[in-house]
Amino acid sequence: MGVTGGSSYHHGALKPALLLAAEEILERDGIQALTLRAAARAAGVSHAAPAHHFGDLTGLLSELAASGFVRFTAALAAAMDEAGGEPEARLTAMGRAYVAFARAHKGLFLLMFRGDRLDLERPALRDAIAAARQALATAVQARMGADASGGPAQATALWSLVHGFAMLLIDGRLRTILDRTPGHDPDVLLEATLACIRLQPGG
Amino acid sequence: MGVTGGSSYHHGALKPALLLAAEEILERDGIQALTLRAAARAAGVSHAAPAHHFGDLTGLLSELAASGFVRFTAALAAAMDEAGGEPEARLTAMGRAYVAFARAHKGLFLLMFRGDRLDLERPALRDAIAAARQALATAVQARMGADASGGPAQATALWSLVHGFAMLLIDGRLRTILDRTPGHDPDVLLEATLACIRLQPGG
Repeated sequence: MGVTGGSSYHHGALKPALLLAAEEILERDGIQALTLRAAARAAGVSHAAPAHHFGDLTGLLSELAASGFVRFTAALAAAMDEAGGEPEARLTAMGRAYVAFARAHKGLFLLMFRGDRLDLERPALRDAIAAARQALATAVQARMGADASGGPAQATALWSLVHGFAMLLIDGRLRTILDRTPGHDPDVLLEATLACIRLQPGG
Repeated sequence: MGVTGGSSYHHGALKPALLLAAEEILERDGIQALTLRAAARAAGVSHAAPAHHFGDLTGLLSELAASGFVRFTAALAAAMDEAGGEPEARLTAMGRAYVAFARAHKGLFLLMFRGDRLDLERPALRDAIAAARQALATAVQARMGADASGGPAQATALWSLVHGFAMLLIDGRLRTILDRTPGHDPDVLLEATLACIRLQPGG
């Protein structure tokens, strides 16, 4: 398979270039502006190139979401490593990194959780989601120690809280509360919010 | 102002008819399928009618979201009334109603929290959001009693948790956990999840 669409991209470089162009459209104009044609135009390639590499728009969106989950998991892992060995600190660091990723990549983050626009069975996406889920589960498990009887509920509570916080924050819905938060700092509010979760064995 | 678009709607009935048609499109095909023209076609009126009543697509989406928030707030209030006078029970009932609304009106719920597609300054929407916010704040306040020193963080924790749970649930992301939940019942998981929040004065 050679270069597609008569572009000047080297073999193998066209797909990443299309993903990059697509992500720029997503962040700048939102998902409603992202079409195969718009991605091709932004990457400066033939309008047939995206269909060749991704099949259809769902394929492109799914590859983009997969790339998002890979970077997301890496960001969570890096934040936890940096926090050291104490499970509580690692969990807080992960929460902060989760929200930070959502703020830094709003369009991508929203896409990652728009299952109706994605092909969740596409291998790249399926594997990337599984890895993200594993990272979350491991951190929660470490925090709770040997007695993990309350595991599923506590993991769900933590994930729901951080996810909901991220979604409400990037949609501007926490503005009123942030106005009353020291330094108007989302991280300060997030930490106070995380402290409201009771993560105890059997709790 | 008479009937617009040569339809057979009575004076005043066209706008609700367009909103209803738009909501059906939203629930069936998602926000990406909803255009002024599609709403007009579904309502069987002139394609100029939606622009006359809503200005543009943002106007239509905002009125739809406002109608969503009005019904949402009513559903939360009804659930709390039914739960009786005990603040803890009222709060749990509100959480269940929140998630139930998201499940029953997935497209509408997603739209209500897509600030980038809405005109949040449109009076109908602004007022509807303020009323929803007030209902949530009142219920949290009642649960916490006189000492509300931890108020903002606890309200944020509760809202984030229920909102995140609803978002993850309707996107199918809780399936693995639900498979391990008694009866595979989202309400059972939600209650266990809500129980992980520490809502104590000063907590």
